[in-house]
Amino acid sequence: MTRYEEVAATLRERIEHGIYRVGDRLPSIRAVCQELNVSISTAQEAYRQLMDTALIESRPKSGYFVLPSRAPSVLPSISRPAQRPLDISQWDQVLELVATQRDDERLLLGRGVPNFEYETLRPLSKTLASLHRSNDLHGFNYDKLSGSPELRQQVARLAITSGCLLHPDDIVITTGCQEALSIALRTLTQPGDVVAVDSPSFYGTMQILKANGLKALEIPTDPQTGISLEALELALEQWPIRAIQITPTFNNPLGYTMPEARKRALFQLAQRFDVAIIEDDIYGDLSFSLPRPRTVKSFDDDGRVMLCSGFSKTVGPGLRVGWLAPGRYRDQALHMKYVSTGASATLPQLAVAEFVAKGHYERHVRFATRQYQRQRDIMISWVQRYFPKGAGISYPQGSFLLWVELPAAVDGVRLNQRLAQHAIHVAPGSLFSASGKFRQCLRLNYAFTLTPEIEAAVRTVGEFATEMVEEAQGHAVGVN
Amino acid sequence: MTRYEEVAATLRERIEHGIYRVGDRLPSIRAVCQELNVSISTAQEAYRQLMDTALIESRPKSGYFVLPSRAPSVLPSISRPAQRPLDISQWDQVLELVATQRDDERLLLGRGVPNFEYETLRPLSKTLASLHRSNDLHGFNYDKLSGSPELRQQVARLAITSGCLLHPDDIVITTGCQEALSIALRTLTQPGDVVAVDSPSFYGTMQILKANGLKALEIPTDPQTGISLEALELALEQWPIRAIQITPTFNNPLGYTMPEARKRALFQLAQRFDVAIIEDDIYGDLSFSLPRPRTVKSFDDDGRVMLCSGFSKTVGPGLRVGWLAPGRYRDQALHMKYVSTGASATLPQLAVAEFVAKGHYERHVRFATRQYQRQRDIMISWVQRYFPKGAGISYPQGSFLLWVELPAAVDGVRLNQRLAQHAIHVAPGSLFSASGKFRQCLRLNYAFTLTPEIEAAVRTVGEFATEMVEEAQGHAVGVN
Ligand SMILES: Cc1ncc(COP(=O)(O)O)c(C=O)c1O
Ligand SMILES: Cc1ncc(COP(=O)(O)O)c(C=O)c1O
Repeated sequence: MTRYEEVAATLRERIEHGIYRVGDRLPSIRAVCQELNVSISTAQEAYRQLMDTALIESRPKSGYFVLPSRAPSVLPSISRPAQRPLDISQWDQVLELVATQRDDERLLLGRGVPNFEYETLRPLSKTLASLHRSNDLHGFNYDKLSGSPELRQQVARLAITSGCLLHPDDIVITTGCQEALSIALRTLTQPGDVVAVDSPSFYGTMQILKANGLKALEIPTDPQTGISLEALELALEQWPIRAIQITPTFNNPLGYTMPEARKRALFQLAQRFDVAIIEDDIYGDLSFSLPRPRTVKSFDDDGRVMLCSGFSKTVGPGLRVGWLAPGRYRDQALHMKYVSTGASATLPQLAVAEFVAKGHYERHVRFATRQYQRQRDIMISWVQRYFPKGAGISYPQGSFLLWVELPAAVDGVRLNQRLAQHAIHVAPGSLFSASGKFRQCLRLNYAFTLTPEIEAAVRTVGEFATEMVEEAQGHAVGVN
Repeated sequence: MTRYEEVAATLRERIEHGIYRVGDRLPSIRAVCQELNVSISTAQEAYRQLMDTALIESRPKSGYFVLPSRAPSVLPSISRPAQRPLDISQWDQVLELVATQRDDERLLLGRGVPNFEYETLRPLSKTLASLHRSNDLHGFNYDKLSGSPELRQQVARLAITSGCLLHPDDIVITTGCQEALSIALRTLTQPGDVVAVDSPSFYGTMQILKANGLKALEIPTDPQTGISLEALELALEQWPIRAIQITPTFNNPLGYTMPEARKRALFQLAQRFDVAIIEDDIYGDLSFSLPRPRTVKSFDDDGRVMLCSGFSKTVGPGLRVGWLAPGRYRDQALHMKYVSTGASATLPQLAVAEFVAKGHYERHVRFATRQYQRQRDIMISWVQRYFPKGAGISYPQGSFLLWVELPAAVDGVRLNQRLAQHAIHVAPGSLFSASGKFRQCLRLNYAFTLTPEIEAAVRTVGEFATEMVEEAQGHAVGVN
């Protein structure tokens, strides 16, 4: 054994014995040199070896961190949805998730909200307070229908980081991303139309389809590369698809990001079949590495992509500040915006504009994503430890949502019913499908500050899931 | 002449000579006694005589005020819309009105916003500031889908004054009244359906019809008693009407309030034909006398009335706090709310709830309506003075919108084009009709603090309108 191999072995042993745990920062190179009395290059070499075996990772300006052991965990499988347009159901389950949020007594492990306890959000509260204190009468008046120019300018600036060159007039501010999605779908479709969606897919969008009498054509989706372009092409040949609705970056719930080349190919496919794309980029800025991934919109040279986004996942959903870049559909989208809610609330727009303009947004997002990345690893290690063996687990490179695929015996809705006695709630997978698929899947949130209480809750979820697996096996045995 | 007749004559002379002008408060009874050396009962008798001839009016706890001379002014005529369902157009004109509000360089004489310069709004700004300053994390989180319980409780309390007994759970908070209307119409209709509306009718609702592919059946409407029940009954017999959409209290733009008996009869008619009512009560609290008029909803014993309202006209539209009492359609309405914008913004709801709970709302509305009532009279006197002879003028008993019907030669849209050079904008009447009726009508706002600058603008509008009348006459002469 060379000297650096010895150092690597020492560190590996400590990790395996839980002295350094998943998500922990390892001692700095300098500290290792001092402790083990080796040279800097030896310590560096040891760390490199640990990285090569995916035991640890280096994060720019932060140091080295223990990774969850990837070996026993597999990715969720590729979805195989029904290959025909379907009506949406599942509203009761969605309602249970969204009806009650603030002041909920339960631990909402499946919720889709970021962490807003970070100090880096403070400047926004301060700006909001001072805008109101100054008794600025603007706050009481209608804003411009397309949104405040101050905010649209900042949104255009941020969009550059995703590869988009947008003019502030290309942007319409909305009441949350949900309104952007709703406007986009209503702009492009008539009742009865077919919309192609990735699968699993965000339940909010699915419910928009339901409300508008639209049919979902769920396209097989790979947990690493996203919507299958091959299946999509076949579908475009076979069905009169009016729009393609996708969340290609840090997908909710599956966590994947479509590689850039596939995003470009998707755009070209849409162009070839002359169909519009609705791109949901609400998580796009929450990237664990920089630069953040490009949007499909960044390839859009003829205005067919309606880009929907907002500040709900980066800042906080309670502000209801979203936006839409409607491309060539601007006039109809503006009409839809007017009839939907009129102009959006004034002061939240001005406050968010200032938060971005002064650099607070970028600082906050940088801080939050550093926490989320660490917490992803911790949450994965808990799932590996407490959930039934063989669970498929996503490995997102941004955002704060984990997708877990359990053995077929587990049913997310029934699991939730059992968890109710412990005041725990997860997001059952069937929410994310028109055809009731993904019953054995769950979505978990790792934006929380991960306390022992949350670890205990995750363990409880795992125990109940294991119970369901065992019951099914017992039943199977009994039947034999 | 008796002594009191002499006193009345003296005061009448002063009014006619402009010593006391329209909207001015007259000297108190005590002051008159001292000045003219008469008894209290003589002064009271004199004032009573002036009231009998509609020269002045008494306002509780405020005193006596000079009224505009009603003699030469007539009400607008009863509308005679096309008696068949129509598609909506006019979006371009609506867009011009709503696209740009804040920071507009023009004087928007036709806008639909209240006055938010009054000190009585201050407590709301303070509450908003302190909620944000306290860094209450609630503000960043999603609220309950149906809205904050605190606010729903206060809304239920306020609704009592309109004769409604609502439980907080009967209420859904929305993003402005516009969203309430949009949800109500989408809940009740499918594309192609026919909706009966009063005529003229708020352009925002008309545009919702347009966006949803609905047809408007405009029902003749009386400028004093509202929608014609006789015409409505005929229409209900003849057409498959899905919903009746009306603004029966302080109607925008016509200003009337349906008498209580007619509201009840309207409800019974809807019941007989088993059709739903969408009642827009956004101006209902701005009554010049107390108690405020009852809503149609107050007669609703089977949940067929969807009541839409909010705080945009009483507090300020920039907050976007509206509400809906969906009656028996609650489940579908809640689904529509979810897909439209998700939960509404959190802190504005909490702030408005506190504003109402602490009595600030009632105080503010009382103060504002006192100003509006006085300003109504002043604005009417300006229109009488500066507009072409024979203009029909509404006489609203609440709210802050005046409707003026000019000679047929005047076209509101063309008038606006001419007014552009003076940076003045009015709301042209054709906005309020599906069939392009009311071209010769205008809507004016008297919520402004009525400065000489605004008087000058009203005069300019009158001059341009007179010019159009004279041009038409010249043309007619030339043709003869
Ligand atoms: C993919 C996706 N799009 C849109 C939304 C809705 O965002 P907002 O709260 O801004 O309406 C969510 C929130 O859960 C989401 O996950
Ligand atoms: C009759 C009527 N209903 C609804 C609205 C819209 O109100 P909000 O700004 O709360 O959406 C208006 C505003 O002009 C109105 O006049």
